[in-house]
Amino acid sequence: MSGLFDGLAAGEDAAARPDCHLTPHASSLILRMPRTAITPTREENYPEWYQQVVKAADLAETSDVRGCMVIKPWGYAIWENIQRRLDDMFKATGHENAYFPLFIPMSFLEKEAEHVEGFAKECAVVTHHRLEPDGQGGLQPAPSAKLEEPLIVRPTSETIIGATFARWVQSYRDLPILINQWANVVRWELRTRMFLRTAEFLWQEGHTVHATREEAEQETRQMLDVYAEFAEGAMAMPVIKGEKTAGERFPGAVATYSIEAMMQDRKALQAGTSHFLGQNFSKAQEIKFQSESGDLEYAWTTSWGVSTRLVGGLIMSHADDDGLVLPPKLAPAHVVILPIYRNDDERAEVLPFCEQLKCDLSAQQYDGQPVRVRVDDRDLRGGDKKWQWVKRGVPLRVEVGPRDIAGGQLMPARRDSSEKPAKIARDQFVATIAATLTEIQQSLFDRAAAARDAVTVKIDSLPEFEKFFTPKNAEQPEIHGGLAYCHFVDSPEMEAKLKALKATVRCVPLDGDDEPGKCIFTGQPSARRGVFAKAY
Amino acid sequence: MSGLFDGLAAGEDAAARPDCHLTPHASSLILRMPRTAITPTREENYPEWYQQVVKAADLAETSDVRGCMVIKPWGYAIWENIQRRLDDMFKATGHENAYFPLFIPMSFLEKEAEHVEGFAKECAVVTHHRLEPDGQGGLQPAPSAKLEEPLIVRPTSETIIGATFARWVQSYRDLPILINQWANVVRWELRTRMFLRTAEFLWQEGHTVHATREEAEQETRQMLDVYAEFAEGAMAMPVIKGEKTAGERFPGAVATYSIEAMMQDRKALQAGTSHFLGQNFSKAQEIKFQSESGDLEYAWTTSWGVSTRLVGGLIMSHADDDGLVLPPKLAPAHVVILPIYRNDDERAEVLPFCEQLKCDLSAQQYDGQPVRVRVDDRDLRGGDKKWQWVKRGVPLRVEVGPRDIAGGQLMPARRDSSEKPAKIARDQFVATIAATLTEIQQSLFDRAAAARDAVTVKIDSLPEFEKFFTPKNAEQPEIHGGLAYCHFVDSPEMEAKLKALKATVRCVPLDGDDEPGKCIFTGQPSARRGVFAKAY
Repeated sequence: MSGLFDGLAAGEDAAARPDCHLTPHASSLILRMPRTAITPTREENYPEWYQQVVKAADLAETSDVRGCMVIKPWGYAIWENIQRRLDDMFKATGHENAYFPLFIPMSFLEKEAEHVEGFAKECAVVTHHRLEPDGQGGLQPAPSAKLEEPLIVRPTSETIIGATFARWVQSYRDLPILINQWANVVRWELRTRMFLRTAEFLWQEGHTVHATREEAEQETRQMLDVYAEFAEGAMAMPVIKGEKTAGERFPGAVATYSIEAMMQDRKALQAGTSHFLGQNFSKAQEIKFQSESGDLEYAWTTSWGVSTRLVGGLIMSHADDDGLVLPPKLAPAHVVILPIYRNDDERAEVLPFCEQLKCDLSAQQYDGQPVRVRVDDRDLRGGDKKWQWVKRGVPLRVEVGPRDIAGGQLMPARRDSSEKPAKIARDQFVATIAATLTEIQQSLFDRAAAARDAVTVKIDSLPEFEKFFTPKNAEQPEIHGGLAYCHFVDSPEMEAKLKALKATVRCVPLDGDDEPGKCIFTGQPSARRGVFAKAY
Repeated sequence: MSGLFDGLAAGEDAAARPDCHLTPHASSLILRMPRTAITPTREENYPEWYQQVVKAADLAETSDVRGCMVIKPWGYAIWENIQRRLDDMFKATGHENAYFPLFIPMSFLEKEAEHVEGFAKECAVVTHHRLEPDGQGGLQPAPSAKLEEPLIVRPTSETIIGATFARWVQSYRDLPILINQWANVVRWELRTRMFLRTAEFLWQEGHTVHATREEAEQETRQMLDVYAEFAEGAMAMPVIKGEKTAGERFPGAVATYSIEAMMQDRKALQAGTSHFLGQNFSKAQEIKFQSESGDLEYAWTTSWGVSTRLVGGLIMSHADDDGLVLPPKLAPAHVVILPIYRNDDERAEVLPFCEQLKCDLSAQQYDGQPVRVRVDDRDLRGGDKKWQWVKRGVPLRVEVGPRDIAGGQLMPARRDSSEKPAKIARDQFVATIAATLTEIQQSLFDRAAAARDAVTVKIDSLPEFEKFFTPKNAEQPEIHGGLAYCHFVDSPEMEAKLKALKATVRCVPLDGDDEPGKCIFTGQPSARRGVFAKAY
C-alpha cells in the first residue's frame, strides 16, 4: 500500500518513526490517471480493497456453498503455475506424488490426542451415504443409510497416510518414504476470506518417513528451504524462515517451522509450514521398522504444506490500487498485445503485425520456457480492454496501432511501474524481452523487501512494544507498526499481553542474530529474538 | 489374455467360431520362464489376475476407508502423464481450468429431476460441521453443529457449476464458456474394484455453455474425438465412438456419447463420456443470455469426463501374465538400466557406464520430450529387481555387466515381446531409442486392435445372439463371445433379453456402417447396428 511503497523514502528509518502512517497517493500516480482502478484504495479500506482486487482481476468468487470459493480461470492459472514449479522442486528433492482418500474414519482422529484437539472443532462430517425423498417433494439423508462410523472430510492427512505408511514400512530398507499429495482439504472456518481462509482449499501435503531423528529433522528443514526459495524466487515475496513457539505448533508436532511474509497492511502471513513430527504419529499409528541391527523401532515422520493461500500472499505482496501485479515467473501471460484500429483496412494491417510479434516473442525463452503472449482482439473499447489487463496484473502490455507500425517503435507499458512507457524499436523489444521480465521480477522482490524492511524494528522494552502494536487510528484498527524483533520467553505474561494487543509471535528466525538479551515481557534471560506481528 | 493375444491365429475368423475359448499358455512364454510372475493367470481367474497386477505393479491398494483406494506413486505417475497430456489437448481446443466447490447443497440436486434420480442413491452426505467428545472417551458429530441443509460431496458438478455459470452468463458476448476441472468425486459404490469402480475417484469434468444448439453439439462431438484420439494415440487402446441409448444416458442429458474399449476378458469398458445437455440444466439453473437480437434465451450446455478408470483400461488392454505392460507415451519410465556387478571393482566400472548411458538416452527425444530413464542400483538380488520392473511394465530393460561393457553391446529386453533380446551396439541402441519406443507403442495398439477384432462379430438372429453371450463354462461366467454388432430397436423386449444374458448395448457407433436391417429382438426395422457386449 502507499504507506509502505510510496510513503517511506528510501533509507528512511521506520524504526525511528513507528508512528508514521499512510501518506496520500503518490503524485506520479495521480498525474497518470484521475482515479484508481480499484475502489476503495488500500489506504481507504485495506480488507475491502483486497476483495475488490480479487474480483477485478477475475481470480475467484464466493460460491453457493458457505465458505467455499470458485477459483476462476485466471486465478487457477496462477495456481497451476505455482503447482508445476513446486512439483518440480519436490521431485528434484526426491519426492513422488501419490493420492490418499478424501475421507478419514472418525476413530483415526482419536488416535493422536493433540491432533484431534486441533482439528475436531472444524471439520465436515459425513454421516449418511444416500438421500431419499422426504415425503414433501424434497430430499433427506436416508435414515437406513447412516454410516456405522462417521467419516471426516480430510482437514489434513497425517492420520490416513500414517495408517498407510504403517503397512508400507517393514524394514530400514523401505526408508525413507518421500511422498507428496496434491489435494483439496476442508476446515470448517466461520470467518472466511478468499484464498486466505476458506472452508475448502487446495494444497499440497508432503509426508515422509525416516529411520533416524536426524534425517527427519533434515527433511523438515530442507522443505522449509524449498518453500523459502519458491516464495522469494518465484513469488518475489521475501520471507522469514523460523521455528514456531510451542503454542503455535501444528497439533501433534514436535517442531513446526514456517515461512512468514509481510503484507502491505503490515500484517504477517504464514505462507508455508514444515513439521517435524518426531515419533508422535508413528507411535499413534504403529509405523515401525526393523533397523539394520535387527531392532524394531518407531519411525520418524515429517509433514509440510502450502496452499492456495499463497495466491492471497501474492496479491497482498504486490497488488496496488490499480489491481493485481504479477511476478513474471507465475504470470499466466507475460505480455498482452492490444491491437488498435478504427476500420477494416487498419485491422488488416494491425492484426498480422500483432500475430507476428506474438510469434517472435513466444520464440524467446524466459525462465526456461517460451515467453507467454496473448493477443487480445476482443470487440471491446480499447480503454476497457487495457484496464482489464492492468487489473489482472500482466507484467507487460503493448498497444499496437498503425502509427506504431509505421514508426517501427512500440511503447510497452510495465505493470510494475507508473512511469510513462518509453519507445523501443520492435526488434529490440523482442530481443530484450527476457531481460525485461527478469528486471520486473527483481523489482517486485526489491520493492517488497524494502517495504518490509521499512516497517521492521528491534524493540527492547514493553512500552515501546505496546506503542508499536497499538492502532494509531480507530477506524483502521489493522494499521500498526509492523514487524518487531524482540527478546522473549514463552510465558503466560507474554500470552496475555499479545492477546490484549492482538499481536502474535510469528516465529524464532533461523537466520536471525543470536545475541542473547532479556525477555521484554518477564525480564528473564532470552537466547534469541522472536518476530512479532499482527497476522492473518 | 492368452485367448485373445495368443490363442487366435492371425486372420482367424472369430465370428466363425464364437465358441473358441481360452487356450493354454503360449509355448514361447513357457520356454522363457517356468511360471508367470502373476498368479493366477488371466486364463485361470481374470478378476483376481487384475487385482494381482495392480498389486504387483505397485499401482494402488485398498485403504482403510471402504471403497476408497490409495493410488501409489507408480500408479499416480501414470495418472499424471494421462492428466498432462489430456490437459494439453483441452487447452489446445480452447478450454481453461477452474475449480468449483467439493460440496453441493442438497437443494441443488433437487432442481434437475433426472439428475437427482441418477445420483441421490449413492452419495456421501455431510450433515455436521464439528465433532465433540461423546462422553465415553470417543468422538461424535456435535448435535449443536448440525447443518441446516445437508451438503453432498460432489458425484459430478453440473449443478454447482451451472449455478456459477448462471452468474457468469449475461450476454451472447460472454459465450462460449469453456471450462475444465480436475477434481475428486465420490459415488457411494457398494461393489468396488480398484481404478474401475471406487467410491472416490479422480477425474476431469469439462463444462461448457454455448449460444446455439449446433455449437453445443459440435463441442460434445469434439471432446468425444479428443478422448478417442487420446485413447488410441496415447493409451494404445482402440475404441469405438458412439451414442448411448436412452437408458444409458447421463441423468439429465439429451444425448450421451462414449468411447468403448474391449478388455482382454471380452468385456467392454466405457472409457470416457461426452454429454449434450441441451437446455435441461440451463432451464433448471436459469443460465440465460441476451442474444444478438436482444431476446433472452436459455443457453445450451455440455459436460464430458474421463477418470482414473482409464488406468484400469490401460491395465486390461495390455497387461499380461507377467504384469503390467505400459505404452511408452504414458510410461513413467521408458528405460530402466540395471547394473550388474559382483564386487567393488566391477561396480566402479559398471555404474559410470550406466550413468553415461542414462545421460545419453535422456538426451534423445521421444514424443516431444526427453526419454525417461532410470538406473536402478538398489541393493537387491538381480532377479528380484528385474522382475519388479517387468511387473511394473517398463517398455525397455537393459542389464549392464562388465561383459556387456567389454563387448560394447547391450541386450535390451522389450516388455511387449517374449522374444529373446537381440544384441545391439550401445550407440546404436541410443540412436534408435525413439524409433524403438514408437514401434512398441504401435505394436501394443496393433495387438489390442487385433484382439478386439478377433472377437467382434455381426449377429443377425436372436438365437445366435443368445449363444454368443452365454458363458461356455460355469466356472468362468464372465467369458463369452465378445462384441456383437446387431440391428436393434430400444424396447422392453430387448431390455429383458439383455438383462437375462447380462449383456448391454454399449453404443450406436458413429463410424459404423448405416445399412438398415431388422431388430433381432422385435423384428422392427432398424436404421443402424448397435454394439453389444458384457461390460464393466
